[in-house]
Amino acid sequence: MKVELNESERIDQLYSQKIKVIQNPNVFSFSLDAILLANFAAIPKSVNTRVVDLCAGNGAVGLFAAHKTNGQFSEVEIQPKLADMAQRSVDLNDLSDRFTVYNTDIKDVYNYINHDSTDVVICNPPYFANSENSHKNSNQYLAIARHEIKTNLNMVLSITSGLLKTNGRCYFVYRPDRLLELLDKMSLNRLVPKEIQFIYPRIDRDANMILVSGIKDGRPGGLKVKAPITVYQGHGNQYTEQISRVLYGK
Amino acid sequence: MKVELNESERIDQLYSQKIKVIQNPNVFSFSLDAILLANFAAIPKSVNTRVVDLCAGNGAVGLFAAHKTNGQFSEVEIQPKLADMAQRSVDLNDLSDRFTVYNTDIKDVYNYINHDSTDVVICNPPYFANSENSHKNSNQYLAIARHEIKTNLNMVLSITSGLLKTNGRCYFVYRPDRLLELLDKMSLNRLVPKEIQFIYPRIDRDANMILVSGIKDGRPGGLKVKAPITVYQGHGNQYTEQISRVLYGK
Repeated sequence: MKVELNESERIDQLYSQKIKVIQNPNVFSFSLDAILLANFAAIPKSVNTRVVDLCAGNGAVGLFAAHKTNGQFSEVEIQPKLADMAQRSVDLNDLSDRFTVYNTDIKDVYNYINHDSTDVVICNPPYFANSENSHKNSNQYLAIARHEIKTNLNMVLSITSGLLKTNGRCYFVYRPDRLLELLDKMSLNRLVPKEIQFIYPRIDRDANMILVSGIKDGRPGGLKVKAPITVYQGHGNQYTEQISRVLYGK
Repeated sequence: MKVELNESERIDQLYSQKIKVIQNPNVFSFSLDAILLANFAAIPKSVNTRVVDLCAGNGAVGLFAAHKTNGQFSEVEIQPKLADMAQRSVDLNDLSDRFTVYNTDIKDVYNYINHDSTDVVICNPPYFANSENSHKNSNQYLAIARHEIKTNLNMVLSITSGLLKTNGRCYFVYRPDRLLELLDKMSLNRLVPKEIQFIYPRIDRDANMILVSGIKDGRPGGLKVKAPITVYQGHGNQYTEQISRVLYGK
């Protein structure tokens, strides 16, 4: 389907798939986080699978995961302008039979989606605590997407847990400096961490992203730390094979 | 100093240093875990530094860390045969002015070392829970070193915390499947996790060891996930440069 683009918007394609996503650098652009999160999530193939993408932004994570299942996606985004971009990206990819965009605060999500109804929750939450002295982006759209202004980690995890069926799975991308908080709060919300994967910008650098999966009411113990993901080769700006495969399919 | 070797004992050298360690494959041999833990620990240079190596085995971790400081080491080991090997390795390296070996259960360590007296605790604890159906080595020495027969993780962390001064540091090597338990129990024992480093046998394999540092009564938050350590190159049995440097100094 053809869609209208607003001012400053452009269409970006993920070449490893046929997915196109409407981006707007002044409002919200997906980045590697979203792509790696979609790649990390295991989603049952069945048409009966129900997936919720929380804090969905322009819908990139859900759209990049669309090929993994024949099931239904709900994209939940609080900012009207971003939810509208997500809806037009859904239309652009002719996925409106499988995708529904809800423009709502995640705390009101139960007005649209039932408790204990969801097989998989994927979420790229705001990374930064909303402390008074945090350097927030003066751009309101970006500030809300990145900082805990409209929601916070505990709310995200509580909603994730509420939406998931028993043994339902959740997938998050987050930052290493808040890993302990994420793991603690997952456990408090009955989401038992199962796999962690660390993303290192280069082989000799500290990790700057983490992928974490959990199972609602899963059996504790047996955490797996998956093989590392390294983004760039050596000290140059060439992607590693691993990342090229995710981005370009080769 | 020359020392006597018992039956089945041999002397192994860590070539990156001048340290020799008495090994006995039937009783206890250090492995890469010990070397990487010693390498990971940051130890103040000063002669006043007090280091305790808990669950010291044949003393390898402390001995490999000896060159990092001019301070004093206490090696605490419950098994008489292992403590004796540790003492003879101390003598062999002429380090008896800086090393004391205590053959005691760690829970009785305060008979020898004061509370709140220690700058750095290093420990390679038994990895495996002592469940009835765990596959324990029928060799009693190895079983005690590897399984939680004589001690357990919470006891190790409680003693670590009791020994450390405020802001004292602790360093552990452990297994990924018990990472969550380690982090939880560290926090419960006032040891705030500060750095984690994952060890991957190969670049495309799940991590099989973790190194974790903590600070007693440290400020929570700001966890660092250090650059990955990979043990073998590709799919062969050649060590990576990173590991060769630690083992052979080049």
